[in-house]
Amino acid sequence: MKFICSKENLLDGINIVQKAVSSKTTFPILEGILLEADDKIKLTGNDLEIGIECYVEADVKSPGKIVLNSRMFGEIIRRLPDAEVLIEVKEKDVVVIECESSLFEIRGMSPEGFPALPSVEKVNGIKISQKIIKEMIKQTIFAVSMDENRPILTGSLFEYKSGTLTIVSIDGYRLALRTLKPESQVQDYSMVIPGKTLNEISKIIQPVDEELTIYATGNQILFDLGNCTMVSRLLEGEYLNYSGIIPKEHETMVTVNTKELLACFERASLIIVNDERRYPVNLEISDDMMVITCNTEVGNVREEIKADMDGKKLEIAFNPKYFIDALKVIENETVNIYFTTNIGPCTIKPVQGDDFAYLVLPIRK
Amino acid sequence: MKFICSKENLLDGINIVQKAVSSKTTFPILEGILLEADDKIKLTGNDLEIGIECYVEADVKSPGKIVLNSRMFGEIIRRLPDAEVLIEVKEKDVVVIECESSLFEIRGMSPEGFPALPSVEKVNGIKISQKIIKEMIKQTIFAVSMDENRPILTGSLFEYKSGTLTIVSIDGYRLALRTLKPESQVQDYSMVIPGKTLNEISKIIQPVDEELTIYATGNQILFDLGNCTMVSRLLEGEYLNYSGIIPKEHETMVTVNTKELLACFERASLIIVNDERRYPVNLEISDDMMVITCNTEVGNVREEIKADMDGKKLEIAFNPKYFIDALKVIENETVNIYFTTNIGPCTIKPVQGDDFAYLVLPIRK
Repeated sequence: MKFICSKENLLDGINIVQKAVSSKTTFPILEGILLEADDKIKLTGNDLEIGIECYVEADVKSPGKIVLNSRMFGEIIRRLPDAEVLIEVKEKDVVVIECESSLFEIRGMSPEGFPALPSVEKVNGIKISQKIIKEMIKQTIFAVSMDENRPILTGSLFEYKSGTLTIVSIDGYRLALRTLKPESQVQDYSMVIPGKTLNEISKIIQPVDEELTIYATGNQILFDLGNCTMVSRLLEGEYLNYSGIIPKEHETMVTVNTKELLACFERASLIIVNDERRYPVNLEISDDMMVITCNTEVGNVREEIKADMDGKKLEIAFNPKYFIDALKVIENETVNIYFTTNIGPCTIKPVQGDDFAYLVLPIRK
Repeated sequence: MKFICSKENLLDGINIVQKAVSSKTTFPILEGILLEADDKIKLTGNDLEIGIECYVEADVKSPGKIVLNSRMFGEIIRRLPDAEVLIEVKEKDVVVIECESSLFEIRGMSPEGFPALPSVEKVNGIKISQKIIKEMIKQTIFAVSMDENRPILTGSLFEYKSGTLTIVSIDGYRLALRTLKPESQVQDYSMVIPGKTLNEISKIIQPVDEELTIYATGNQILFDLGNCTMVSRLLEGEYLNYSGIIPKEHETMVTVNTKELLACFERASLIIVNDERRYPVNLEISDDMMVITCNTEVGNVREEIKADMDGKKLEIAFNPKYFIDALKVIENETVNIYFTTNIGPCTIKPVQGDDFAYLVLPIRK
């Protein structure tokens, strides 16, 4: 294998596929990037949960394959001058990297043991702007459960049904839901993507208008960005019936400024220096105001915020983290919050439309 | 005590004095900021190594003193809206913090136990631009020793002699020296400031042209920034005679581009993944070129760099970290490097003048 390509293009590719390379593993090959030279260069990273392939323009002198340790290869390319880089495999898997007056010889690994990416048939694809899918993941991923006892909840549901794509995360105390009606129409599907891989995928997707295509098959999902594709395994099992969880009725509804409410919750939680469960934040909802209070051994805090109320007055208590996480990712200037009783779930929704819903369970006092 | 001041001014003051507040201590009062209201507000942080005082403009309604936990106080003020803040001490050291519709009540501590800052007589002061003293600290602090067995080397020497201020750090393997001829002339002095406090001080000093004044007395140094003063204790003992360490003669001298040489050393050290001492970086100096090589179990690297040589050809080996640390803080485009023998020290100096000197000991092979 021998090829010449620009340092910049090569580094861009490495930075992307590195997201799918294991950093801690007992199999050195999984810490590697597979380089394949044909008419272009293909880089592949695969940690067996997520796999990423990336094509890089290059002048290929002779085809071939090699696996290089991802960290070492990335560091070397990153530090090279901004110029053409020559990469050549010599005898015994020794790889020469040459750029201007720098010359490296490092040991590569045989590509034999490198796990192939699962093949996903490119049918039933939805086109969505990268910016929007990145936002949708950000707005739901924080509610993914960390509890390995219920593995299905450690992922987010991706459901396409009757023209709407819905992403849902539930961790037992709260739910985050985001919907979109993409222009492309496909067959209905429902699958659960591991939270860890969604996190990596959202780092690769850029906040740009260019579209990517999402292909879903029985047990894989593929994000196709053109030069680069990401495949993720899915979580097996039945997801919760989220639509049954979100209350249809309410006793109290308030309309409130999103950023101001976030600031109130953030300040109120400052005096919780120990365990958040022992010290809930209290909400007292009346005609045109919400009073938010918290008392701990450190002191007490009282916040007032203007709120248009509809329905009954209410006193209710929450873990402030759950409100803070949701309010942080809402772009809308104002939101509606729907309360059932002081022991029933409350739901944050947009003032218009049904783009999102954040459900939070209160703390019983 | 009761006063009103702007959130912004108060936060600026807190951010500065927090640099002198202990984060881990068994004395809660040392984790606090002393607030004193008189005609202005004075904030004080003191971890017994470094003490910082900062004045903040305020409308003082009644004078008084209180100590507040630094982290809690800082977090609360940081999260308040950008508006006027009222602070008032109530009964039993309870402190009320009020800002728009936010109201905090937190427990303060009696100011009795708070350690007073040492008083430093403001005579014999040198005026230096903040930008320059910040740069001088940055260019010498990295060579401060971490070895507590020779406590005097865990600080930097500040020496004023015959119109020149010299800062020197030595860790046993290398030396960093930076000089300046300030306009103000004072009596000669020599003192050793702990590296840890220089690090904090350099964070507070801004890269601006405004001057600060350095006052030195027998056992304290004071940096006076006008609204804010920092006092540091000194290290006791005799510093090394640095001028005897720097060789006056050389056998080989090269002139080389600083940034390019830095990049060569950084790349060469990439393949040292274990212990730096086991794998030195080799320099082979000939007429118009330096060849830098390194061989480890990972592979090998060879770098060539243009270098104007004067004197004898030489092969010598170094711990690359020592070169990298020095080259990173040199602003000059080119530098001269003076070599004695392949077991004697080498010195990096400016092409013109004597603003700095970096001495590095080679590794015997």
